[in-house]
Amino acid sequence: MSEVRRDIVTDTWVIVETDTSHFPKDHVIEMVSMEDECPFCEGREGLTPNEVYAIRDGSDPNTSGWKVRVIPNKAPILRIEGELTRTGVGVYDRVNGIGANEVIIETPKHTANLFELDEQQIFLILKTYNQRISDLHKDLRFRYVLIYKNHGRLAGASTISHLHSEVIALPATPIRIKQKLSGAKEYYEYKERCIFCDIIQQEIETEERLVYNDPHFVVIAPYASRFPFELLIFPRRHSYTYNDMTDAACKSLALALKKVIRALYKVLDNPPYNLILHNSPNLIPHKDYWLTIKDDFHWHIEVVPRIHRTSGFEWGTGFYINRVAPEFAATKLKEVL
Amino acid sequence: MSEVRRDIVTDTWVIVETDTSHFPKDHVIEMVSMEDECPFCEGREGLTPNEVYAIRDGSDPNTSGWKVRVIPNKAPILRIEGELTRTGVGVYDRVNGIGANEVIIETPKHTANLFELDEQQIFLILKTYNQRISDLHKDLRFRYVLIYKNHGRLAGASTISHLHSEVIALPATPIRIKQKLSGAKEYYEYKERCIFCDIIQQEIETEERLVYNDPHFVVIAPYASRFPFELLIFPRRHSYTYNDMTDAACKSLALALKKVIRALYKVLDNPPYNLILHNSPNLIPHKDYWLTIKDDFHWHIEVVPRIHRTSGFEWGTGFYINRVAPEFAATKLKEVL
Repeated sequence: MSEVRRDIVTDTWVIVETDTSHFPKDHVIEMVSMEDECPFCEGREGLTPNEVYAIRDGSDPNTSGWKVRVIPNKAPILRIEGELTRTGVGVYDRVNGIGANEVIIETPKHTANLFELDEQQIFLILKTYNQRISDLHKDLRFRYVLIYKNHGRLAGASTISHLHSEVIALPATPIRIKQKLSGAKEYYEYKERCIFCDIIQQEIETEERLVYNDPHFVVIAPYASRFPFELLIFPRRHSYTYNDMTDAACKSLALALKKVIRALYKVLDNPPYNLILHNSPNLIPHKDYWLTIKDDFHWHIEVVPRIHRTSGFEWGTGFYINRVAPEFAATKLKEVL
Repeated sequence: MSEVRRDIVTDTWVIVETDTSHFPKDHVIEMVSMEDECPFCEGREGLTPNEVYAIRDGSDPNTSGWKVRVIPNKAPILRIEGELTRTGVGVYDRVNGIGANEVIIETPKHTANLFELDEQQIFLILKTYNQRISDLHKDLRFRYVLIYKNHGRLAGASTISHLHSEVIALPATPIRIKQKLSGAKEYYEYKERCIFCDIIQQEIETEERLVYNDPHFVVIAPYASRFPFELLIFPRRHSYTYNDMTDAACKSLALALKKVIRALYKVLDNPPYNLILHNSPNLIPHKDYWLTIKDDFHWHIEVVPRIHRTSGFEWGTGFYINRVAPEFAATKLKEVL
């Protein structure tokens, strides 16, 4: 059970677990492989909640014979049922915790690293992202669907090492997305050009932070990287939504991810990392507000190695200290690509 | 050598190290005690840069006979010399890395936990905070002085376990402070009351998130805690600046810190944590802009246990998931206080 709470000073929203029964000891648990009893492996479908979606060759739901399988999170932080309500608590504000939590199981065989999959399997995972976003956008309570991946304990991964991504549908557009949307909108109002298209063009021209480049996608080490070896993956063609990606582009993205994740693995010795899809919000419930989004926003993927442990400085300021220049990171990655 | 870079999309500033010689391997280094060769221990003053300040009983600088000692950081990320300059880099913006980095060595004897010190020693540390803020505020290039403490590797601490705090003077007010300042200002414009005073009053009345309370200070588990067992320490009397704290109040704060940090140690088994002083910015270089700050801002200390490893969700959204309700955290801490 949870509540979504607003910090009235900084306008930060926090999902707070109000159930006190799972007092965390997660800072002492270490990652275990669990291959022998992994609930995500093919043949153990009975150990998970019933699937909400799967790519199957005609087999029955919740049995073997799937390529990618999507299940509700067994311990969801947000509840799918109910209406959104806002309540005052003295000076504070509270919203009830409405949303969806799903897990995308990315392969039937127990595999821990994305780059070990073949391109066709990664393509199917990326198509599943597409399907879940489209499906969850039909629910007008959900303003934003975030898909992300945690690899390794230091990146917040659970103890299940079997490859999977997380899907969270949220009742509000998160602050970090809002910052990107409004930054992009301001730039567009001033220049009448997409800020991300300009960044892509400059990075292709200067090459110094360009990590990977094909006809559909570019991968760059961003100029103001917050963390060592942080990467951004952009479609080269302007596009505000992940959902209009062609199959050909999706195949390119699968190959780009496989190569780039493998390069990080080699250079940083299997680093913990997060992969985050920053797509546009659900436009159906608020068409007018985002009238210009098709022109000014450009979807992308963040890949964030978590080899730097944030200190009181980052938490105290919102500034970041990055001791590895992105130009150096790009060079290192290109050496192994 | 470093640059301060702005992410033009999100308006996040990043200090980027441009020297590529220290490629980090810090995710594999574990905390070592180093008592035998600790450069912060009394008698090894020759192993550190020359002190910028110390509390001494008449002994010479950079010799034994001190209670608290402040030195420049040996590997500063910002340089103290030079003028602030802003440069365009294609679509990007750059500022050179001007600022001060200091280390406050908090005890002459090798000690790892703040609560092991006596109250008088903690009082001297807190007075040293005061002295460093006042001194650095004289440099009009410095807009904000942040003092913080990293305890344990997961909280970003270095390998030196000897008790110390970090001081960073920055050429701009950080975004997290700005968020707090503007939230406080908006509330004040609407209600003509300090938002923090209202929070303190409500928390004392309801008691459910109140952890500690004396005539000078209150410690609460904030309503929208981002992390399990996050705490805020406020002076009860409205005050926008740490520097007008009386000695009597400072003694109360020393006792409060000792008790609260010990309580966290007991309940969470020596957790990694950050302690962050959120004081008002340097008002001297921009008096007009902060005209109302004396009324609307209220300094405080954040104590943030780092037992939760942030995942792609937090980084992707700026939302936080906290699986321990602050009411529960307050109850647990009060049991051992």
